[in-house]
Amino acid sequence: MLDSVSHLSVAAILRDCLAETETIFERQLASDFPAVNSLCRHVERYRGKMLRPTLVILSGLATSRDPLARASVTDRHLIVACVAEMIHMATLVHDDILDDASTRRKGATVNALRGNETAVMLGDYLISNAFHLCSKAGDPTLNLQFGEVTNTLCEGELVQLSHRDDTSLDEPTYFEIIRRKTAVLVGACCRFGAMLSGVDDHVVQAMDRFGRGVGTAFQIQDDLLDLAGKEDVVGKSLGRDLDKGKMTLPLILLLSRASNAERAVVLDAIERRDDASLRRIAERGGAIDMARARAVEIVDAARKELGCLAPSPVRDLLHEMAERTVRRDF
Amino acid sequence: MLDSVSHLSVAAILRDCLAETETIFERQLASDFPAVNSLCRHVERYRGKMLRPTLVILSGLATSRDPLARASVTDRHLIVACVAEMIHMATLVHDDILDDASTRRKGATVNALRGNETAVMLGDYLISNAFHLCSKAGDPTLNLQFGEVTNTLCEGELVQLSHRDDTSLDEPTYFEIIRRKTAVLVGACCRFGAMLSGVDDHVVQAMDRFGRGVGTAFQIQDDLLDLAGKEDVVGKSLGRDLDKGKMTLPLILLLSRASNAERAVVLDAIERRDDASLRRIAERGGAIDMARARAVEIVDAARKELGCLAPSPVRDLLHEMAERTVRRDF
Repeated sequence: MLDSVSHLSVAAILRDCLAETETIFERQLASDFPAVNSLCRHVERYRGKMLRPTLVILSGLATSRDPLARASVTDRHLIVACVAEMIHMATLVHDDILDDASTRRKGATVNALRGNETAVMLGDYLISNAFHLCSKAGDPTLNLQFGEVTNTLCEGELVQLSHRDDTSLDEPTYFEIIRRKTAVLVGACCRFGAMLSGVDDHVVQAMDRFGRGVGTAFQIQDDLLDLAGKEDVVGKSLGRDLDKGKMTLPLILLLSRASNAERAVVLDAIERRDDASLRRIAERGGAIDMARARAVEIVDAARKELGCLAPSPVRDLLHEMAERTVRRDF
Repeated sequence: MLDSVSHLSVAAILRDCLAETETIFERQLASDFPAVNSLCRHVERYRGKMLRPTLVILSGLATSRDPLARASVTDRHLIVACVAEMIHMATLVHDDILDDASTRRKGATVNALRGNETAVMLGDYLISNAFHLCSKAGDPTLNLQFGEVTNTLCEGELVQLSHRDDTSLDEPTYFEIIRRKTAVLVGACCRFGAMLSGVDDHVVQAMDRFGRGVGTAFQIQDDLLDLAGKEDVVGKSLGRDLDKGKMTLPLILLLSRASNAERAVVLDAIERRDDASLRRIAERGGAIDMARARAVEIVDAARKELGCLAPSPVRDLLHEMAERTVRRDF
């Protein structure tokens, strides 16, 4: 039942699907209360790269019989794309909740909404609507699997918080944390995209691994930019990880390879939240390059998973997106 | 298929079902991470009256063919009971998130967990697990309806926050807020209990109205205790509504009936968060009694809804619970 008339460029299909995703998003969040609607409009500014919806849509297309037909993207794909973005936005809003301890420097700009309590409830409203919207897809498997994803995500955040200011955090724990808090949701986007195209389970699993790799690399790159990026290019406050006592990969690599004397200097800079010094030390000591190399390695492994797909412009675009993840400076 | 051997007293059935609910609760939240498990144990102290699970179970029994058979309470009833309690606990945990403004007095005791950020993530973990557990019941209607309930609940909280320090809040808006943030979930507990017993829709709707009435009265009583209760009897910090700039029914009644001179005194006391003075004025002016009378009136109307049920000791217990809502001083 493929309609060759509807064949379009990947970019045109993606643009159309993302626009539909946004419409579903807004319609789902619409409230009878102006106060709620104005907060939801506030949330729009969190919407950035739409990485997760894009991956749902492209994974759906790439695993379909006809990757260049708009009709290969079903309503369920779009709902799932929207649910994933809503969950992601909820985590961004809740990430802005600050403790007194972490308001030290950039608190005023970070939590520009209307205080912690409103940010909490707004995030809850997004989570609740994400699950409600997911239920509308009428596929109980999606509800169950999204629930597992968000359980894992919250555990990742809680474990990360339990390691706040823990300068002895090791690499395996770091990777377990980012697997849970970032990689699992991105993996699910690719998995659901494939699953809803009705493709074989080994492809569904390969797409899940692809997404997890991309998500992991994306998180490492985020951590790198937070330490070593340029604020005007990245477009958000940097040094937040340090403010929040989060140990990221470059710092972990730096500490694990430091002499006793260097170690003392690094620990002191962490204690003083002195990110300018840390950036200098990490750059000089090669920790930035090492972390970047890890991200590249992970993305390269992820891209190999795309070998299970038939060649298509959509597959090429997934390759390109994966690569851009570790090349971006924003 | 009723088993007369399993006939037990209502109290024994309820005890058994609540114990099972707790087991499901703990099993659902169990994590691979000790840090997460220790936080979940922390949450247990929020568990109080188990009002919501009790209403699911009793509504299920009261609308079943055999209200005194343990077998009338199905696994789905217990899952729903647990989901409702998890959602309620998430709101309690998130209610403890404080803005700088509201940490003024009792912040230290209120947020005794591990800071705002952990409380946010722990609440999210509870919400996520609630939806995940709900999906396990394998009834998509439940997912959809629970989603609607939590959307409404969050809207209620957001609208309440948008009226922070709004001393012109009127009665209709107050009732709309508590309908959304409290009554709808309590109503859903009774509705789901009946729905899962497979009873006629008019009974399901009557039970929903019963629950909403009980929930509304419960919230008014909570507000009353926060202003006029005794801290050692209630067992939690009082005066929190005032600290958080929440206008509650006794204050609304007080202001709407005050002379200009009295009004100025009341507004000044609100401004100064002087709950001792407000309590005195509200007691003397009859606002406490008036608010209490409203709660009694609402509960009496709710109890009439129970007329749709066949007489049984379970129905009697529902009557008693409703009445106790407005008599409790804890």
